[in-house]
Amino acid sequence: MKNIIKPFVVCLSLFLQTESHAQYHQFVDPLIGSEGLGNVFIGPSCPYGMIKPGPDNDLHANSGYSADIDKPIYGFSQVHVSGTGGGAKYGNVSVMPFSGDFASIKQESLRENEKVALGYYSTLLSKHNIQTEITTSDRAAFYRFQFGNNDKNAIKIDLGRYLDESIIPDGRESQQFVGSQVEVISDTEVRGYTKIRGGWNNGGAYTVYFTAIFDQPFSEFSTWKDQKFYPNQKNQVDEGKKTGAMLFFNGLKDKKVNMKIGISFISSLKAKLNVDNEIPHWNFEKELAETQQKWEDLLQRAEVDKDASVEKKTMFYTGLYHTMLMPVDRTGENPLWENNSPYYDDFYAIWDTYRSSSPLITLLNPSREVDIVNAMLQIYKRDGYLPDARSGNANGRTQGGSNAEVVIADAFVKGLEGINYKLALEAMMKDAMFPPGGNEEKEGRGGLVDYNRLGYVSTDYVRSGNRTIEYAYNDYCLAIVAKGIKRKGEYWRFIKQSDNWQNLWRDIEDNGSRGFIMPKDANGKWVDSIQCAATNGKINYVPYTPLAQDWPNCVCWWCGFFYEASSWEYSLSVPHDVAMLIQKSGGKEAFEKRLNTFFREEFYNVANEPSFLTPNLYHWIGRPDLSTDRIHTIIDENYDASRDGIPGNDDSGAMSSWLSFHMMGLYPNAGQSYYLINTPYFKETVIHQENGKDFTIKAKNLSTKNKYIQSATLNGNSFENAFIEHQDILNGGVLEFVMGAKPSKTWGTKQVPPSKSDKK
Amino acid sequence: MKNIIKPFVVCLSLFLQTESHAQYHQFVDPLIGSEGLGNVFIGPSCPYGMIKPGPDNDLHANSGYSADIDKPIYGFSQVHVSGTGGGAKYGNVSVMPFSGDFASIKQESLRENEKVALGYYSTLLSKHNIQTEITTSDRAAFYRFQFGNNDKNAIKIDLGRYLDESIIPDGRESQQFVGSQVEVISDTEVRGYTKIRGGWNNGGAYTVYFTAIFDQPFSEFSTWKDQKFYPNQKNQVDEGKKTGAMLFFNGLKDKKVNMKIGISFISSLKAKLNVDNEIPHWNFEKELAETQQKWEDLLQRAEVDKDASVEKKTMFYTGLYHTMLMPVDRTGENPLWENNSPYYDDFYAIWDTYRSSSPLITLLNPSREVDIVNAMLQIYKRDGYLPDARSGNANGRTQGGSNAEVVIADAFVKGLEGINYKLALEAMMKDAMFPPGGNEEKEGRGGLVDYNRLGYVSTDYVRSGNRTIEYAYNDYCLAIVAKGIKRKGEYWRFIKQSDNWQNLWRDIEDNGSRGFIMPKDANGKWVDSIQCAATNGKINYVPYTPLAQDWPNCVCWWCGFFYEASSWEYSLSVPHDVAMLIQKSGGKEAFEKRLNTFFREEFYNVANEPSFLTPNLYHWIGRPDLSTDRIHTIIDENYDASRDGIPGNDDSGAMSSWLSFHMMGLYPNAGQSYYLINTPYFKETVIHQENGKDFTIKAKNLSTKNKYIQSATLNGNSFENAFIEHQDILNGGVLEFVMGAKPSKTWGTKQVPPSKSDKK
Repeated sequence: MKNIIKPFVVCLSLFLQTESHAQYHQFVDPLIGSEGLGNVFIGPSCPYGMIKPGPDNDLHANSGYSADIDKPIYGFSQVHVSGTGGGAKYGNVSVMPFSGDFASIKQESLRENEKVALGYYSTLLSKHNIQTEITTSDRAAFYRFQFGNNDKNAIKIDLGRYLDESIIPDGRESQQFVGSQVEVISDTEVRGYTKIRGGWNNGGAYTVYFTAIFDQPFSEFSTWKDQKFYPNQKNQVDEGKKTGAMLFFNGLKDKKVNMKIGISFISSLKAKLNVDNEIPHWNFEKELAETQQKWEDLLQRAEVDKDASVEKKTMFYTGLYHTMLMPVDRTGENPLWENNSPYYDDFYAIWDTYRSSSPLITLLNPSREVDIVNAMLQIYKRDGYLPDARSGNANGRTQGGSNAEVVIADAFVKGLEGINYKLALEAMMKDAMFPPGGNEEKEGRGGLVDYNRLGYVSTDYVRSGNRTIEYAYNDYCLAIVAKGIKRKGEYWRFIKQSDNWQNLWRDIEDNGSRGFIMPKDANGKWVDSIQCAATNGKINYVPYTPLAQDWPNCVCWWCGFFYEASSWEYSLSVPHDVAMLIQKSGGKEAFEKRLNTFFREEFYNVANEPSFLTPNLYHWIGRPDLSTDRIHTIIDENYDASRDGIPGNDDSGAMSSWLSFHMMGLYPNAGQSYYLINTPYFKETVIHQENGKDFTIKAKNLSTKNKYIQSATLNGNSFENAFIEHQDILNGGVLEFVMGAKPSKTWGTKQVPPSKSDKK
Repeated sequence: MKNIIKPFVVCLSLFLQTESHAQYHQFVDPLIGSEGLGNVFIGPSCPYGMIKPGPDNDLHANSGYSADIDKPIYGFSQVHVSGTGGGAKYGNVSVMPFSGDFASIKQESLRENEKVALGYYSTLLSKHNIQTEITTSDRAAFYRFQFGNNDKNAIKIDLGRYLDESIIPDGRESQQFVGSQVEVISDTEVRGYTKIRGGWNNGGAYTVYFTAIFDQPFSEFSTWKDQKFYPNQKNQVDEGKKTGAMLFFNGLKDKKVNMKIGISFISSLKAKLNVDNEIPHWNFEKELAETQQKWEDLLQRAEVDKDASVEKKTMFYTGLYHTMLMPVDRTGENPLWENNSPYYDDFYAIWDTYRSSSPLITLLNPSREVDIVNAMLQIYKRDGYLPDARSGNANGRTQGGSNAEVVIADAFVKGLEGINYKLALEAMMKDAMFPPGGNEEKEGRGGLVDYNRLGYVSTDYVRSGNRTIEYAYNDYCLAIVAKGIKRKGEYWRFIKQSDNWQNLWRDIEDNGSRGFIMPKDANGKWVDSIQCAATNGKINYVPYTPLAQDWPNCVCWWCGFFYEASSWEYSLSVPHDVAMLIQKSGGKEAFEKRLNTFFREEFYNVANEPSFLTPNLYHWIGRPDLSTDRIHTIIDENYDASRDGIPGNDDSGAMSSWLSFHMMGLYPNAGQSYYLINTPYFKETVIHQENGKDFTIKAKNLSTKNKYIQSATLNGNSFENAFIEHQDILNGGVLEFVMGAKPSKTWGTKQVPPSKSDKK
């Protein structure tokens, strides 16, 4: 089986060869999160890469990929997302090499010897005896097919395949076929497109154009349309039917065929230009090395202790990697407006990523975050609203707040330059003042009429609990930007509104703690019970408690009082005014008890974002040691470097960025200018910033035993707070902790992190 | 000048030749409405034709065309609309033959010997000595270029030209460039596209793809991008820049070149398929004859008195022609969703066309109207809302009501089959219950929160006067459909709401008449004066009276209390309850006086739609003779067969359909099942219906003197009413009037047409 072994030799030597100059990318394992709930994309991708070529073996898997070795691969498609939940999106322009039965459009094979590394994927399609290797640039992918000992082989380009195809017309969250076209240009070039609508965000039609170029001429070809083959017919015109092309390679037993495939959202010619610009050669190894280097340039910006365990380094750098897979850079590729300004797509969803992903990009790659925010403002300008989620060039859906406002405030308070904050405020005001109408889950703020009239979203609207609490924080973020650009009227209006969470704060007790965000109707009356499913013809009412999850049993998944969480979780989510939250919960002692109950009784949900900040809330009662205890327990019990190493959907890297931040000992309160400090996992982390200044975090004597910060210095001066300003990091320097086995009674206990009500 | 004269000979013989079998299309003069305000499209078009190729000599003219002979033609573009106002739309894929200076992208020429007929356009571009003739099929155009005595000639395909280009980014109502691409496929074939956004409806980007095929090979070519020429470079990829191609024809002095150009909104291959399917030959005359025949099949459905004057027949048949230019049939050409159901675009605007255009199509071409309504329902299903206006695949803008509801009700009460009225009701309910949000002028009902809470739209919203009054009628239409499909709950809710116009009825006097629709604020207080422009630093308040036009002097064009009209006009616009309007105006006598004042004092605006029904309101006081007097005066003073023969923007044929209906002696009250009867302009009109039954309207003894209906019979039986049910027409038969010189004291005086309040 010479033909199978050979590519592996090449491939392994490749890895050995690149290791010498590749310090960090080798610690990235794209398979972390590929089993369990992670749903990560495992194929090769550049940072924020538009093309994400990879194997599809599960039509309903969010990344197209199931780790299940018994699920045959049916193609390698060019567009994917990473870590998402709900209905799948993309999976377009499916390429499949095959042999044997040439009469069937459907082709599949089990896989063997799968190999996954940063920028690289390979597997043997055992049924066809064809080895497939993939690497990629930003907008074009490089495939290397090693045919086996069959004399005739073929490559299929299938424009009728895509993820989550549903036979239900307009099936919610599923994708629907709109049209496709294929054109054989020469015996080495094929172009065309596939047009799909729907998917998780229920977006409008998007078109993925492609041009595929081969280094060997195909001997013959057949195109198809609507299941019927047309041998040697060059074109299949888009008439709303599924089309594709079979390219036959005769006499290439044991030979290689290379294919470069570019994609574009503009045109097939643009797709070809993307190939020509990005991969003007036929050297697979060179392309792989370039992609590795792109990552290397980013990953090396956080240089952790060389002596740390490979597992910890793998967890950390894979975390950074996952964070930088999305949103994707499609600058020049927006089909709907002039394309000379940055354009990013696949914000999926900002509800997930505003908390730690955006801040992590701001820390390590601020110029990129400037582009991302500018892209969001372009989206506002052109489509009318900022996105909360967005995919396939269409806004949608909103799970709760209009959290682009947090991303903008985070950029503003961290001093990102090159953003038109006046335009940004206008965009935020649109969210806050104009009901999105029609489809209230597409963008903006659903239930806004209530919110602006009553000060809360009433039970007339779904998700009224988390909408209210999120809008209050969004208002805070809006106010901060307004204040910063001297718009006092807006500041006062929205800083007042940011207290609106209190309008749903009900002074009831549950499991020993007081005060919860609870449902209220439009007349201001608390709602005690909710209608649930009818049993034997009788409608049931069930009490609505702080632990109740009305969804999905009583109402639909998106129709509960809170989105994907309970009141226990959301009632602790007031990032701008933890001091007031503590006061309303009965003071510091009661609050500590409340947090303890929350974690001990497992009311905390490690697999979802609403509680991302909660383990850090001990900081506000002067107990950063307890925050660290919780965080390290959460990480140690739920995260590792295995395929099942991410506890929930990675959500475009949200879970991963949460992990990477905590491993460095920092955690952002997104929208605010500081980071909370916890015990890091590394003795040293050097952040090489884009401004040229290094910021080092050192933990002297750190060990499993010495896990508590006793004291700290910043550039040699005593540093008593368990939080640090972004500006202090920007200035460069060294933050050094002295570690010890017992919690410190002094460090981080006096000055707690800021709260809105401090300022009164 | 043999080369110039020759095409005219061909052309004239062509007209003579077709006259024998062409009874009606020769009475169509596409130039009626080409001067003055009409803004009609003068180029060739099939009925509801997707392609509308024609000359552009005015960048800001709505149809691209100015009759001004001193304005040079700069190209012939493939997409136009007819009769619109406001910012222009389309003007895409500009083709220009030229000679002489080959170094410049800009090419233009004055025109001579322009000839315009149904399906045909020709002119001599005098500067270049090139004769251009155009005819067309539905989706492909046929150009015949006769070169003069220059040895070298060229044809330019310019993808960077379009109407109403503005240097202001995002200029309201103007079009903006998004991208373009060109590809020379062979020496006889060029393809590409142009992508533009904006225009009057401020719509998103639309793409017009094309393929142009020549019957002579071009000798050489040069493509360009961003003003720079690339000789012999086949492709110019879309990178957001303007592109195009110059095709040089050498040695064709005094020769002809034929070009077929197909367009598509899907792809260039689809555009080519459109050419291949529709014009599989190179015979210009054959194509012209086919287009004439398509019109002939429609026009002959209303067969008027053969002895009528050519002018009257020309006015009438041109009216039918204008009515059937839009909306355009783009079935299979919607780029955003599956295309197996009817798709129509360029509803421009339903606010204009619901009153008489849709009913005229329903009368003469009901199967077409079924498709149009089904297309509207598809738009609702896919885009979320019915259109009120729509162009370039995007809804927008609403001037007042959600008048698709009137179109649906009109279809329903006239028994159109093959429409899912359950889905239609759902679509109407969406308008009536869900604020469109964000951009409240795109679709749905702006100010709906007010309307549903207060029963009127308050002065917090612009256009609150006509919005309120139109929504009330829309609600009536909704109620009628709800009742018809046994949805009693909805019926009762909306029939009650249809009285909402009364909430803005203020009992004040103006010019001797009582009661007007007047502005009211959100607290229920009448608004007496409005803020107007500041003079010398002082804000002026001006009284708001029933004759006031706050727009465009005090506020923007779209920001007044009424859209494009005064309270005198709109206060008479209650099509569902004229009886109540009469009562509120002080009874029959007061109402007659009011109508007389309205017309005598010229408060009536012949150039706009809000008063389309008003001259007929005398019917409701039992005086159809007075209606006829008004209508005939309006027509005789404002309409004729000249180029300036339409008094206002034709609005996709709205003005024209109003005229054609009245010339037959019928006028619909759109959304209701009857036609008002007036004195026709023809002694006989036979309507050959699609159901196979003829309906004949005869006016015995009709003359200038004998202009009043004395009595009538329907199929020989006495017919006393001045209105007739649609069903009576469907049944076929003869409606015969006996005419006389004096108004009848009896006919049409007893039973007046229906009103909502009759039913109480």
